[in-house]
Order: sequence, then structure tokens, then C-alpha cells
Amino acid sequence: MDDALPVPLPDPVRAALAAPMVDHHCHGVRRDDLSRSEFETLITEAGTPAPPGTTHFDTPAGLGIRRWCAPALDLEPHVSPAVYLSRRAELGAAEVNRRLLRRAGVAAFLVDTGLDRPELLTAAEMGRTGGAAADEVVRLEQIEQEVATAGLSAVGYVKALREELAVRAARAVGLKSIAAYRCGLGFDPSRPSRGAVIAAAGRRLSDPKERLTDPVLVRHLLWAAVDVARERSLPLQFHCGFGDTDLDLHASDPSLLTGFIRAVAPAGMPVVLLHCYPFHRQAAYLAAVFPHVYADVGLALTYTAAGSAAVLREMLELVPFHKQMFSSDCYGLAELCLLGAVYHRRGLARVLAERIEEGEWSAADAARVAHMIGSGNARRVYRL
Amino acid sequence: MDDALPVPLPDPVRAALAAPMVDHHCHGVRRDDLSRSEFETLITEAGTPAPPGTTHFDTPAGLGIRRWCAPALDLEPHVSPAVYLSRRAELGAAEVNRRLLRRAGVAAFLVDTGLDRPELLTAAEMGRTGGAAADEVVRLEQIEQEVATAGLSAVGYVKALREELAVRAARAVGLKSIAAYRCGLGFDPSRPSRGAVIAAAGRRLSDPKERLTDPVLVRHLLWAAVDVARERSLPLQFHCGFGDTDLDLHASDPSLLTGFIRAVAPAGMPVVLLHCYPFHRQAAYLAAVFPHVYADVGLALTYTAAGSAAVLREMLELVPFHKQMFSSDCYGLAELCLLGAVYHRRGLARVLAERIEEGEWSAADAARVAHMIGSGNARRVYRL
Amino acid sequence: MDDALPVPLPDPVRAALAAPMVDHHCHGVRRDDLSRSEFETLITEAGTPAPPGTTHFDTPAGLGIRRWCAPALDLEPHVSPAVYLSRRAELGAAEVNRRLLRRAGVAAFLVDTGLDRPELLTAAEMGRTGGAAADEVVRLEQIEQEVATAGLSAVGYVKALREELAVRAARAVGLKSIAAYRCGLGFDPSRPSRGAVIAAAGRRLSDPKERLTDPVLVRHLLWAAVDVARERSLPLQFHCGFGDTDLDLHASDPSLLTGFIRAVAPAGMPVVLLHCYPFHRQAAYLAAVFPHVYADVGLALTYTAAGSAAVLREMLELVPFHKQMFSSDCYGLAELCLLGAVYHRRGLARVLAERIEEGEWSAADAARVAHMIGSGNARRVYRL
Repeated sequence: MDDALPVPLPDPVRAALAAPMVDHHCHGVRRDDLSRSEFETLITEAGTPAPPGTTHFDTPAGLGIRRWCAPALDLEPHVSPAVYLSRRAELGAAEVNRRLLRRAGVAAFLVDTGLDRPELLTAAEMGRTGGAAADEVVRLEQIEQEVATAGLSAVGYVKALREELAVRAARAVGLKSIAAYRCGLGFDPSRPSRGAVIAAAGRRLSDPKERLTDPVLVRHLLWAAVDVARERSLPLQFHCGFGDTDLDLHASDPSLLTGFIRAVAPAGMPVVLLHCYPFHRQAAYLAAVFPHVYADVGLALTYTAAGSAAVLREMLELVPFHKQMFSSDCYGLAELCLLGAVYHRRGLARVLAERIEEGEWSAADAARVAHMIGSGNARRVYRL
Repeated sequence: MDDALPVPLPDPVRAALAAPMVDHHCHGVRRDDLSRSEFETLITEAGTPAPPGTTHFDTPAGLGIRRWCAPALDLEPHVSPAVYLSRRAELGAAEVNRRLLRRAGVAAFLVDTGLDRPELLTAAEMGRTGGAAADEVVRLEQIEQEVATAGLSAVGYVKALREELAVRAARAVGLKSIAAYRCGLGFDPSRPSRGAVIAAAGRRLSDPKERLTDPVLVRHLLWAAVDVARERSLPLQFHCGFGDTDLDLHASDPSLLTGFIRAVAPAGMPVVLLHCYPFHRQAAYLAAVFPHVYADVGLALTYTAAGSAAVLREMLELVPFHKQMFSSDCYGLAELCLLGAVYHRRGLARVLAERIEEGEWSAADAARVAHMIGSGNARRVYRL
Repeated sequence: MDDALPVPLPDPVRAALAAPMVDHHCHGVRRDDLSRSEFETLITEAGTPAPPGTTHFDTPAGLGIRRWCAPALDLEPHVSPAVYLSRRAELGAAEVNRRLLRRAGVAAFLVDTGLDRPELLTAAEMGRTGGAAADEVVRLEQIEQEVATAGLSAVGYVKALREELAVRAARAVGLKSIAAYRCGLGFDPSRPSRGAVIAAAGRRLSDPKERLTDPVLVRHLLWAAVDVARERSLPLQFHCGFGDTDLDLHASDPSLLTGFIRAVAPAGMPVVLLHCYPFHRQAAYLAAVFPHVYADVGLALTYTAAGSAAVLREMLELVPFHKQMFSSDCYGLAELCLLGAVYHRRGLARVLAERIEEGEWSAADAARVAHMIGSGNARRVYRL
């Protein structure tokens, strides 16, 4: 990785940037070989093909893959999509995944296992493939979906949800909510009454294959998670900002969580705001004023690619350095893990070089900041 | 134009930037000579004189005019407002318009004719004066105003609106909505029922000289436009973000259109988000995840002037390169067209130079991106 | 200060930047010596200790203090927090305040006296300590709290509030509202009816020690302030954006004030938007389109510290140069005043140097802009 830094830096800062990182939020990558259309769908959050005559490769992430992943497959930077995909097929998914994940320089993957499909590597496989440790982050909505479809009564649903959360949390290092995709983050922050929950559960169970969107049950799920998380200070991750088309961007602003953040403060567990783009300044603000709030810019780095240093620079305007973390949020493609890591290191290198050059920070402080964000904070927060 | 590029670039990139562009959203400029106070009012969205002791020339756009338009009138850069306006009067509006529009390097103007006053050049005149092709973009709210004041019944209004839309759309290359100025973009995205529309039309027709602000009728107008647009995939432009004082900025966030964007996806026509500042990152996100959404930063470039490269840089963080377009949104003053073009080319030159210098993009990719944004995308989307 | 400018600049621009500024919004600093935990609490808006194992010094402002305030205490830049605080204790608060406030290069402090605690310097003391003039800005909510706790009837409360506002305003140069902390800025902009106010006052007076949060009374307070302010065009300041944990960030967006801004336009007095981060572009827009609106980035500069030039650069994208002002918003610590002044001058120097280097602005214009923002606009608006 070290050779990928775009600016000269003092040795301790280079070393801190090059050190293995904790990817505190990612997903499994595909174990199978992919067609061009499958690959293109995975390099965008669109979920649909590019319009006729265009390609998803003509995006910041697409150009990033041609630049930074091609060399890992023994190709020149900027090779055409066709050449890249041909070489990828030639090497095979297993070898490609091994090369890309290892080149990302990750010490530990914390894997959101909420999208468990057989074609995705498991948490343990992500670790083995990437030469790293691996732990599980449990997705609340997936547990809820399992419980909802188990054929229980409303009362049974409430009881089973709590039990299943406890069981799954016991072997996880964190919990994750995608409430942003379901009812948005502007929900009433208070714990719903048992009566309201039972009533909502009754409605829910009449059509359990539907996704959970009822704000009462979303809140119930979150508060049940808080009860489980508080016992061992288990971090609660929230998807915020930029995501796929299921989401209303304006309803994913993390500052909409302010009331919930206040309400759960007594519970003591960390609240971790993921991605947050283009509301990363809002996330940095929340991390600055609430002692239990942490944040990253996650998949924003991957998708803004060559423009990602500016995003990281904005996050660093206000965030306390003991509050920011690194995640790649890779899903499906090991390319996205490498891009996340590359752009984190390159962007941070650029900002740290500016700080040092302008005399604002000492090299020792810069190295310390790089270490905290790259791995130190995650090790402390997730008790790795 | 080429000499205005602020950074060294490979020849193909310079050529792509210098090539004539499609200005896919502008208005007519004034054909008459202007007093200082008339001119000052046209270089701001304020609509009011600057406070006593101050001048609208003390704005980014004001300094931009002194810098970039003065040379087109044979003056030194940075001449005083008085000298600039004196020379402008000496040359006369016709000659000034000719010089400034031609210097903008535009191949085709797509002119929103919704503000058709006799003192503004028509679309055809814009083309002739600027040495360019010209086509019409029809403003929905202007058609509605005409129909509303025609003395019809509610049922007749609904029928006439549909017919008039079809007639006007038949000779246009796009439709334009200023719903942001009327009820904001957070309207209910669903098509209103015929009953609700007739009832609202009844109320509307009791005072037809008022501007349309009823959300039911705004929605009806938009859905009627969708019906017309879908037949030949006619793009539907939306004013978003920064505008004059009629607008509530927070209600002009394009992400508020997400529901509408989803609802019209089956209709297949492009939705084009104009300007969008300071929500251009939201616009880029929408363009990235919805295949039928396009975006520009339009008048944001003109008004942020010397600061515009940063705006363009943020747009380019996430936008697919086949989704962004160029517009000057000039209104009243040919100066605003030249500023839009100058700052588009200068800002994009700067970003492309950074991408190449950092090794992120090849020169060939950079040239291709410049071409797509400058004219290629607009030619494809508007079928020019 | 001059030696702190980070870039070469023509002499007139350096002189304009170095000239004493008007700090048009600040608070008193502590007159007493502070423990480390007291000091740490004052360098953050968190109001709580940093999480175990971390320190509020690991923030942009914390590193800024070690960089820019240490030399004022005869220390090397980047000394450790312990060394800094030890030297601070050795010199004593009076000497530290004198050194830091004077080094800030301020000609006049406009002091919000709404937090009048005996341990804070008064406005007059701020002036004497900093070698500057000093004037008072009256905080509306503090006056209301005094009146609410005076044991009056609802009718008496309304009458006394108006009288007390008039008395306090008579010796102030401006009024200040923290409605953002109470009911958010999205309140109904219209003046409430007398009946509604009396009814709300009745409820309010049943528990007068509580903070004012009733939107009816917040609006009443604001409109009473407008009545007082209009007579001598007294500016009305609004806290916007980033603040402490009492605030919901999304409800502090200054564009939510648009309706109120329109409604008070006939009254003629200036409306001044303070801080505004991360909504400073929204504030710049409002200042650009409404003739009576002014804005600053206030405490955003202090808290974004090494990253503050980017914030200032964004503000300068759209703001008219006769509309922006400088404030430090220092509270408790003289360090925060020095940081505000340092980062204002450094950030503005950087942006002006860019403008000149790119040929966008003449040096004379750059110097004029620096003067207007640093002091000229505030002297005109506050009639100093």
C-alpha cells in the first residue's frame, strides 16, 4: 500500500497509514465468477443497468477500479473494462478476491451478515481470504424478518425477537440498523409502549414476507437492540446517507437521529454512524458533541473515488480524532474493499500532509491521528 | 476560450474542453440597452437594489464580469463597473450580446421560453446572435397560466391544459417545471385523482391571475407533462436549489423529488435536475442511482464564479459521467452566459488536471468525460 | 498577526488582513484559573468529558490551541496539553486573557451578555483586557427569563417584556436570538395574536424556571424584538447551525428562517445569521438574495480550525462581500477568540491568494474584500 500514497510524509506518518486497518463495516464478496452485467451492477448503488449507450464504468468508482485494481491483477492502470474483466475471469474469483482483499491491508473485517446469500463469502471466509481476523455484526432487520416469518403470535413475536437478538448478539461484536431504508431516521425516538408494539406486530404478522417498515416496530426493534447492547456496551451501527434506491436521501440525514441519540445516552453503548454522505459534516458534529457517538465516511470513499479526499477533509473539519473509524462497506466485489482502503489512505495522507506542511499539526500528532482512525478507535469501541 | 484554461492539460483534453457546448438550459438575454440599476438587478437573484452604500458588483458574479467579460468588450480585466458599463453602452446591446454569446463557445442553446417578454431575445434570436443552433424548452407553469386565464370551466381547463401541453411539446426539445418556486419539491408524488383536480381547478379559476401554487394542480400539471413527455422520451427539467426570493431553499432540495422520480420511472423519459446548489451532491446521488435522472450545476457556476471549481468538483464526486450536462441558465444578460461557459471550462479543466496529475484518470478518459458533459450527454438526452 | 499568514500576498492585502477587526459576536471569557477538566469542557460544545482514554484535546480546536496559543504563552507550537495548561496556570488567567485577546487583533468586541455569570468578563472588561472597544448585544431569551420569573400575570408579562426589551435595547448595538436552541428555526413566521400570546404566557408562568420553548412565545419574543429593533435599525442576530447538545442540527438550518426573513423585511433592520455550519452555503444564499440579511461563519472557524479555510471558501462562493462579517463567538476561553481571529485571517488569506493568483480578482479588490469582512461591514451594520 505504501507506494500508493500521493504525497511525501514523515516516516512515522507513512507507517501509521500503511499499518493494517480495522474495516469495521463490510459485507461478504461474491465467491463466484461474474458476467459483465453482474459486475457492472455491483459497482453502483443503482441496481439497474446503465442507460443504453452508457456504462457504469463511467463513474468515479468505475475509473477507480481500472486505476487501482488493475495492477493487483497484473494489468496496467487504466486498462479498458473489457480487458479488466477478461483478466478477472482468467484468474478466477477466488484468486481475485485473495489478491484484492490482501492488498487492502486489513487486520480485521467486521462483517454485516444481514445479506447472507450462499454466493457471498461468510465472515470467516472474508478473514481467511483477506489474511485477517473476522467478526460478525448482526443486522437487526434480518433477525426481525426471520422472527416475523416464524409463524408466531404477536406476543410470541415480541418474545422471540428479544430472545433471538440476545442469542445473535452474544456472538457478535456489534449490531446494525438499516432503519434509514425502512422508515427513515426521523422516527419518534421514544420507546414504544408494549400495547402499541403488540398491535403493530399483529398487523405485521398478517403479511410477514413484506419488509418491516412500520415505525413503531422499527423503534421497538431498536430499543430491544439497546437493551441487548447496553449489557456489554455493544456498538449500534446505523446506515446513514447515500445508499441504494430504497432510501430517501433526505430521510437518512444522521442529525435526524439526534433525539434517539439523546434518549439512549444513559444506556452507554456506542452509536456508530456509517457512510453519512452527503451529511458527513452532520455526523462529525454529532460525534463532536455526544460522547457515545462515532462516525465514518464508509462507502462514500469508495464511490467518490478520485474525489474522496475532499469528503474525508470535510469529515476531519469537526470530528474528534478518537471518534472516526474506517470502513469499506464492500459488498459483492473485493474491488470495493481495495478502493475503500486505497482512498482512505490516500485521502488521509493528503490531509495529513497539508496539516503538517501548514504547520498546524506535528508529525507525531498526524501519525497518532492516522493510527486512531485506521484501527485504534475501532479496537477500543468494538473491544477487539 | 482555450486561452482561459487555468492549468496545463494534454491536447485532447484541451480540445474537448474548448469544443462548442450544448447549453441545455438558458433564457433570452435583453435586446435593449440597460441602465446601471437595471444591469445590477440582473447580476443577482435578489431582485432588489443592494443596500445603501453597497453594490451588487461586490459579489462573486460581479467580479467575474469585470474579469471575464471586460476583455470581450476590449477592456482590461478588472476595470471598474462604471468603465465596464460605459463601454457596454458605447457598443450597444446588440454588439455586446453578439460578442459575449459567441465567446461562450456554444453549439446549441436550449431556451426556456417561459419568461417571454418582448425585450428578451427569442430562442431563434439567441441562436443567430450566438452563432449556434437553438431549440425551445417549454415551461409548464407558463402554459398553465395561459390556460387558467382563458376563461374556461374547470373541466375545460383540464382538457385545454392537456391539449395545449401537447401542442407546445410538439415543437420543443424538453419541458421545464418550476414547482420548486410554487409549492416546493416535497409534494405528494402520486397522480392526483380527477375529482381532486377538478375541485382544485374550480378554486384556481376563481382567481386565475394568481400564480399556480396549489399542490394538487402542480402535481396534475406535472403528470399531464409526463403523459406528453413519455411518448417521445422528452426530458422533464426541474429547477432545484438556489434561485430568487420566491423560493424556500430547503424546499428545493432535489432529493425531495425521490418519490416522484420513482413514480415516473416506468414512463421512461429523462428527469433533469437543474442547478441544485447547495444540494448538488444530492443531485449527483440521484443521477447515480436512478437510470433516468440527469443533473447539472447550471447557474451555480455563474454565481459562485471564482469559487465555482469547488462546486463542480463536488458534483463530480459521485455523478456518472454520462449523466452530467452543462447549462448557463443565463437570463437577461449575455454576460451570464459567458460566465457560465468560462467557469464550466475552467473548473472542469482544474478537476481534470488534478485527476490526471494524481494518476487517477488517463488523459483519454479525461477528454471523454469533458466531451460527454460539455455536449455529448445533452445531444443524446435531447436527441439533438 | 501578520506573520501568521500562510501565503504570500500583496502588501495592501496583508495590511487589510492584519488590521484590527470587529468581533461582532462573542461572549465573556473566564476570569478565574481553570482545572484541566474545566478547560477541556470549554474547548468543545459537548458539555461532557471525553470518553475514557480520550481527550477533548484530540480535536481540531484542541490541536489549534497547541499550535496557535502556545506561542502567545512563550511556548513552542505543539507542546503537550499538560505543558500548555501548566504554563497557563503559571501565568494566571488575567495575564493569559490579556495576551490572547490582544494577539487576536480585535478593534471592538460586541458581547452577547446573555450568559452573565460572575466568573465571565463583562463586555467592558473584554474591551479593557483586549485593548479594544466593547459594546453589548442583548440576548432576547435572557430578558424573557428574567421577566418570566418576576411573578407577573400573563398580561403583566407581555407588558413587562416589551418594556424591558426597550430598556435593554437602548444601550445595546444589537439583539440576539437563540430560537434555534428552543423550538428550532422552522417556526411559523407570522406574528402571533395577542390572545394566543396571553394564553401561552399563562401556561409559561405556571413553571417560569423552565426554559422558554413554546413556539408561540418564541415568536412573540422575536416580534417584540422586531418592534424595538426597527426604530433604530438594530441588527437581530440568530444563532444558526452547529452548537451544543441542546440543539437539533437539522432544525437550525438558517434557510428555515426564510419566511420570517420575508415577513420582517418591511421593518428594515438587518438580520444577522451566526455560525451556520454546516449550512453556511444556505446562509450565503440568504445574504445574496435578501437585502437585509448578513452572515458569518463564527464559531465554525474556531472549531474546524486547521480545516477552516474550506469553510470560509464555501461561504465566499456566493456571499456578497458587503454582507459577510467576522465573529469569534469565544466563550469562556480567550484561546477561542485567538483561534477565531487566526483562522479567519489565515483562511481568508488563502482564498484571496487563490483569487489573485488565478487572475480572478485584482489585489485592490482583494484588499477591499478583506477590509469589508474584517470590520467595514460590521461598522456599517452596527453603526459603530
